[in-house]
Amino acid sequence: MLSTMQDGQLSLANLLKHGSRVHATSQVTTWTDQGPRRETYADLGRNAARLANALRSLGITGDQRVGTFMWNNAEHLAAYFAIPAMGAVLHTLNIRLFPEQLTFVANHAEDQVVLVDGSLVPLLAKQLPEMKTVRHVIVANGDPATLQAPSGVEVHSYDALLAAQPDTFDWPEVDERSAAAMCYTSGTTGDPKGVVYSHRSIWLHSMQVCMTDSMQLSPADKALVIVPMFHAMSWGMPYAAMMVGASLIMPDRFLQPKPLAQILASEKPTFAGAVPTIWQGLLQQLEAEPQDISHLREVVVGGSACPPALMHTFEERYGVPILHAWGMTETSPLGSVARPPAGATGEEAWQYRYTQGRFPASVRARLIDDDGNELPWDNESVGELEVAGPWIAGGYHGGADPEKFHDGWLRTGDVGKISPDGYLTLTDRAKDVIKSGGEWISSVDLENTVMSHPAVAEAAVIGVPDEKWDERPLVAVVVREGQSVTAEELREFLSDKVAKWQLPEHWTFIDEVPKTSVGKFDKKRLRAFHSQGKLDVTHF
Amino acid sequence: MLSTMQDGQLSLANLLKHGSRVHATSQVTTWTDQGPRRETYADLGRNAARLANALRSLGITGDQRVGTFMWNNAEHLAAYFAIPAMGAVLHTLNIRLFPEQLTFVANHAEDQVVLVDGSLVPLLAKQLPEMKTVRHVIVANGDPATLQAPSGVEVHSYDALLAAQPDTFDWPEVDERSAAAMCYTSGTTGDPKGVVYSHRSIWLHSMQVCMTDSMQLSPADKALVIVPMFHAMSWGMPYAAMMVGASLIMPDRFLQPKPLAQILASEKPTFAGAVPTIWQGLLQQLEAEPQDISHLREVVVGGSACPPALMHTFEERYGVPILHAWGMTETSPLGSVARPPAGATGEEAWQYRYTQGRFPASVRARLIDDDGNELPWDNESVGELEVAGPWIAGGYHGGADPEKFHDGWLRTGDVGKISPDGYLTLTDRAKDVIKSGGEWISSVDLENTVMSHPAVAEAAVIGVPDEKWDERPLVAVVVREGQSVTAEELREFLSDKVAKWQLPEHWTFIDEVPKTSVGKFDKKRLRAFHSQGKLDVTHF
Repeated sequence: MLSTMQDGQLSLANLLKHGSRVHATSQVTTWTDQGPRRETYADLGRNAARLANALRSLGITGDQRVGTFMWNNAEHLAAYFAIPAMGAVLHTLNIRLFPEQLTFVANHAEDQVVLVDGSLVPLLAKQLPEMKTVRHVIVANGDPATLQAPSGVEVHSYDALLAAQPDTFDWPEVDERSAAAMCYTSGTTGDPKGVVYSHRSIWLHSMQVCMTDSMQLSPADKALVIVPMFHAMSWGMPYAAMMVGASLIMPDRFLQPKPLAQILASEKPTFAGAVPTIWQGLLQQLEAEPQDISHLREVVVGGSACPPALMHTFEERYGVPILHAWGMTETSPLGSVARPPAGATGEEAWQYRYTQGRFPASVRARLIDDDGNELPWDNESVGELEVAGPWIAGGYHGGADPEKFHDGWLRTGDVGKISPDGYLTLTDRAKDVIKSGGEWISSVDLENTVMSHPAVAEAAVIGVPDEKWDERPLVAVVVREGQSVTAEELREFLSDKVAKWQLPEHWTFIDEVPKTSVGKFDKKRLRAFHSQGKLDVTHF
Repeated sequence: MLSTMQDGQLSLANLLKHGSRVHATSQVTTWTDQGPRRETYADLGRNAARLANALRSLGITGDQRVGTFMWNNAEHLAAYFAIPAMGAVLHTLNIRLFPEQLTFVANHAEDQVVLVDGSLVPLLAKQLPEMKTVRHVIVANGDPATLQAPSGVEVHSYDALLAAQPDTFDWPEVDERSAAAMCYTSGTTGDPKGVVYSHRSIWLHSMQVCMTDSMQLSPADKALVIVPMFHAMSWGMPYAAMMVGASLIMPDRFLQPKPLAQILASEKPTFAGAVPTIWQGLLQQLEAEPQDISHLREVVVGGSACPPALMHTFEERYGVPILHAWGMTETSPLGSVARPPAGATGEEAWQYRYTQGRFPASVRARLIDDDGNELPWDNESVGELEVAGPWIAGGYHGGADPEKFHDGWLRTGDVGKISPDGYLTLTDRAKDVIKSGGEWISSVDLENTVMSHPAVAEAAVIGVPDEKWDERPLVAVVVREGQSVTAEELREFLSDKVAKWQLPEHWTFIDEVPKTSVGKFDKKRLRAFHSQGKLDVTHF
């Protein structure tokens, strides 16, 4: 028996039509070197229509991919709506990818057109000759003449192109499960993998961002979108804002602590989202030049674990609660949000807030051990987290890495535990766990303990093969400038801090820990150095 | 190009599993003549599994319909989850239907089993012999021996039946567009019509109820569900509560002002929903016996227009904001919610709050005039409201009244205007508008004006055929006891209050206005009286 409900599709064309009409006066503010530049959601709707007409005039049809190589600004936002709403697929190119990765993703997605910010033209220009499917480049916020394009590629001015177009567009009906946008993960192993979001997944995710158990983004919010729009769709904030009419503040390329503090002072956002590093930088800026930031009702922190000290400082010194959340490109990204349960106060509430958060109803989760068994939610059993739901990836574009998906679940590669009331605590990436004699050693715990020694600047731990124990930890230490410490001293330092069987036998000293394009420890390269015999290792 | 998102279904089985696990300690409190009876969401999950096993044991398979004839209580809530989650279809029977309507809907839906509260057994028993498909009756909260069932119908005790069942159930996967629940509208014309909700529509509607631009139902809420569970799914509150873990307070049959005040005092709900009449009654009770009700963060009012005076009294005397909302059985029912836009304060905010509300992104709306043209949203043009969206009906069960649906839109039968920023103001039911010489006369406006005369108790206005003007208004007046007034005096009274061309020529005096089963003016019967010549009409 079928229901008698309407069979319409959840689509970004409907989202754009709704937001630009019902919330016509909501604002998009883009920061520039001359201060704020403002437009309304009604303007955004007209510009999205102009851009869609322009792309059609350049030959974009069907679900062809259109890349963006841009900061967070009003032009990028118009692309966020115009491209999916016209039936094409938005591909947000990560400006921080290594050059060969950037070429790979543009070719893999078969981008036909790339929109680029003037300030990023030099970065794109170097790779453009290798991008085999790109036929047009549209330069926004800058002079198109600065781009020397390879033959076969036409260069356009965003402003001139749009000025010639009508400000309405006959947005097509689409199947809600068709592709709307794609984003490649810059993992530490292999080529980047494409996650392809659907109209449906973006719609549902946007609703969740506005729900009481998640970000609570509301019509009254002015949201400062610091997370780049090329990182997991800016955590979904642009689409969610359009859904309820929250105003958006876009920092463009002004992401350093000092201009961020200026944006806060000028625009007084009520909400913001960024990785911990951004907030650490802002904190130092605020300590140097104090400023009231209590207009922020809340800020969301994700991307990597938020240090508790950061949460306490923001809340206790500046009156701004930090909301800890977990997600990944493959989860759209909202996976869990650390709002304490009703009634929890004081230290109990803090213990909940330190976790990666609670799963909303649309995200199902389970923990799987090494043998594929499901583990209980007892806040003790540790396993790999798997998730499922309508905005969770079920595969990668082109079928890459099929082993990450099975039986309708995504293997997140994250390792942790879940409490009986559904709060996730992550301890490691699965590939960073050291499997020693049937037990798991957390490399992250070991790293943090070694780094708590005053002479240590950085420490990275990898597993190395061991005949008896399968794997044992190897610690790579960067000594703080002007200090010195031996492996023996560090072992002694650890001896009363970790279990005896976890105490590492293998130590090496290096000049710096290799990093990925987003600044995370690149353990893949560290493992390669070790297997190539490039590390000078002390064994106990 | 299809997205790589997972293709899983939005289903009430997943909602039940989520809520009863992640929000295991959230409470369901049912009011009884001995005060509160409490259980947890974990208990609810176990009872839903027991009920599903019991229904399976009685032969319920596939998408067969299971009726409920119950108050708002924990047993009805278990049925709300068990029946759809097992793949069957919940049919909430309205205990206030006229007897022949009740028989009609049970037969039309082909209910196989009916769950009934002990206190409602006498009401059901009278109609049971006419319910041709019912094979089992399960009596909750009462003695099954009180029911003398016709032959071929087995009677069971809810408690005994569930006690024998396991507390887990292997919930099946379902297509999200399949039927989950049905509710018949008790319209004023023709037979009741069945609206069949899907798993998808209920899931999406539940998310909306928890969004910042709607009810904002949150994990910290204790929601008092006064709206009967047989009226448009209790406005979706039970399912939304399960989604975020809000606790539920169920008043069972204790809906009179005095016990409601007791429930408020005992349970201190933070949120509640009901029609204006309930709040009017509570207000009188509070004036007689004052009581602090400021624990209510907000109450939602819908079902019929909320008088502004009621909103002001609640907010100014008791500190409880009333949130005005519009919807109907066909809209699940959330159609629009009157939260003022960001920045509106004082009188401006009040003007927004008096409206029927703003459309959320998932509800599309348009106004259509008599000739089928779409009207602008200028807060002046008046037309019939049509709506579309994923929780809006696209038809009735069995294809009844197909003319209510066209091109993917529902004709609501409501007449009003929409502001440029998407706020709806309703003025009439379409069938109550009087079409006079190409202009529309609002019967509701006329009624309110006539009723403002001190000698008038009630007044109902219908359109009667007119050769020159197509239709003209006929006013049926009920004079207040102990008072007297003539048609001439009433015309004189109206003369400076309505436009000259609207002034009614046809007047009649009646003893009472006929009412529907839910207490609304039954203009269908009034029109019938007129066409049968039963009214004594004065013409000017």
